[in-house]
Amino acid sequence: MVSKVMRTTRPRPHDTALPRPVMLAIGGDSASGKTTLAGGLVEAIGRDRCTSICVDDYHRYDRAERQNMPFTALNPDCNYVDIMEQHLQMLATGQPILTPVYDHSTGTLARPQYVRPREFVIVEGLLLLSTKLSRACFDISVFLDPPEDLRRAWKMRRDTTLRGYSREQVVADLARRERDSADHIRPQRRYADIVVRFAPEAVPKDPPPPLSAELLLRPTVQHPPLSHILTNDDRAAMHLMVVRDDDGTPVDCLHVHGDAGAEESQLLQKVIWDGVADKREMPRGLGEISPGTRSEPLAVTQLLLFYHLLQEV
Amino acid sequence: MVSKVMRTTRPRPHDTALPRPVMLAIGGDSASGKTTLAGGLVEAIGRDRCTSICVDDYHRYDRAERQNMPFTALNPDCNYVDIMEQHLQMLATGQPILTPVYDHSTGTLARPQYVRPREFVIVEGLLLLSTKLSRACFDISVFLDPPEDLRRAWKMRRDTTLRGYSREQVVADLARRERDSADHIRPQRRYADIVVRFAPEAVPKDPPPPLSAELLLRPTVQHPPLSHILTNDDRAAMHLMVVRDDDGTPVDCLHVHGDAGAEESQLLQKVIWDGVADKREMPRGLGEISPGTRSEPLAVTQLLLFYHLLQEV
Repeated sequence: MVSKVMRTTRPRPHDTALPRPVMLAIGGDSASGKTTLAGGLVEAIGRDRCTSICVDDYHRYDRAERQNMPFTALNPDCNYVDIMEQHLQMLATGQPILTPVYDHSTGTLARPQYVRPREFVIVEGLLLLSTKLSRACFDISVFLDPPEDLRRAWKMRRDTTLRGYSREQVVADLARRERDSADHIRPQRRYADIVVRFAPEAVPKDPPPPLSAELLLRPTVQHPPLSHILTNDDRAAMHLMVVRDDDGTPVDCLHVHGDAGAEESQLLQKVIWDGVADKREMPRGLGEISPGTRSEPLAVTQLLLFYHLLQEV
Repeated sequence: MVSKVMRTTRPRPHDTALPRPVMLAIGGDSASGKTTLAGGLVEAIGRDRCTSICVDDYHRYDRAERQNMPFTALNPDCNYVDIMEQHLQMLATGQPILTPVYDHSTGTLARPQYVRPREFVIVEGLLLLSTKLSRACFDISVFLDPPEDLRRAWKMRRDTTLRGYSREQVVADLARRERDSADHIRPQRRYADIVVRFAPEAVPKDPPPPLSAELLLRPTVQHPPLSHILTNDDRAAMHLMVVRDDDGTPVDCLHVHGDAGAEESQLLQKVIWDGVADKREMPRGLGEISPGTRSEPLAVTQLLLFYHLLQEV
């Protein structure tokens, strides 16, 4: 088993060992924002330094075969989870993989793809944090946890525009998947180092500001010290509070309101960035939702993840 | 790296370790008889105890992409040899793989196949013995080395009947592949523990007897003691002689003529079988070419390989 402790020991004991990449897991339910978050990080780090893959193609059955199965594609029984674990171990130890490819347009398994890990490996997947061995392959893990209403709206928009489904099909799909979501996807939340919840503000404004971000920072990794610069006053646009997690354990909760000012956000980002050992210029373009539209909550979230990736190098 | 020495150490040090299968490599050029030999062994051992796979589907390019390449599918540059090595290591350590599948009818890469190693793993492939790491995954290796005339006749028969090619296409294919055969396939002969050459008798008879078998028994594995029961008189139907291999090294050469008598062959087989530690009944059906037609050279070859497989358990 690849243990997190072993993997981060540096310098490496043998010169002959393959260079080990920094591994980031992005978990979360369907349409929870995994691809968007991964894409932004790849842009910030640079495409030439990143390998970004999705491990949702380890299907045991194709679409036609799944028709008569008592479970959906979200169920571990519907996937080669053992092969996913094996491939993650390969990537974590610097080795290439031949990853299966599922063709969403035909619902069949297509030509596998050769993937070689670069310096940073960003992996997204529905079952990524579902097993101990899979989790052990990562230096840092994130779980995206938007409010269920928001996720359903995102899924509706994506599947009816990009994937060619009707609204009725998406509604039926969500209903069919609910049980497997509850049993197999949502429980993964508790294994992530960081839980990210983008959500609209409780009090509506016109025009609506960008979504706020609430980040649970679990002590499973070392976060940048922020308590000395952030208030614990929850009326402030950015604040850090100790809260009780769903299971009752205390955890730091960083909140960035959608209408947090750029200046205030920059200050927080500077403090995070100052903690990076490898002093380089702060990446540009963080927080960009679309050309010209910027979200401070997204910028802070991306920078915090970037910070963790660089800490692991 | 999985070393042969490590792999055969028993009992196993940790109870939690996966059971390691016995690994047999069957190498040789296209249409040299790999599939036929593997099939006979699987029948003898029992389908429920064997995993039999061909690792010629690790193509980097499909048929259309290969059209403009300066090499054929026999060339290592045309294949994901690193992934083949990785998958062989997985099987050798008892782990499942998701192996790529090449569809000969369309010339494209199809849905990968999940393969779990059983007690005996019989692997055939064109590049199986081409790398040190690949070779190290096997307990025992065989290279099929029929005279080139015979192999070409076999390829012509197979490709024009089973694979739908015309005679002209097969002739062109053989010519196109010759360089890669010479550079990459035939050199693997020297790495096999056993080199098997089925060939017609030098002096023609009517009706022609089955092909004779010449087996080079390299000292890289421990062969059953045969020198006390076999003559070194090369006029005998079965004989064992020390000869010089192509590279000048001395090697035992077991020859079984096509017209060797069943009684004589049975005696040799009994001696081989007596050396098997696990005393079970000798497998039936060895040497069967087709229903009712039996070849003593084939029977001896299969039994010798079976002996080695059981020695490694």
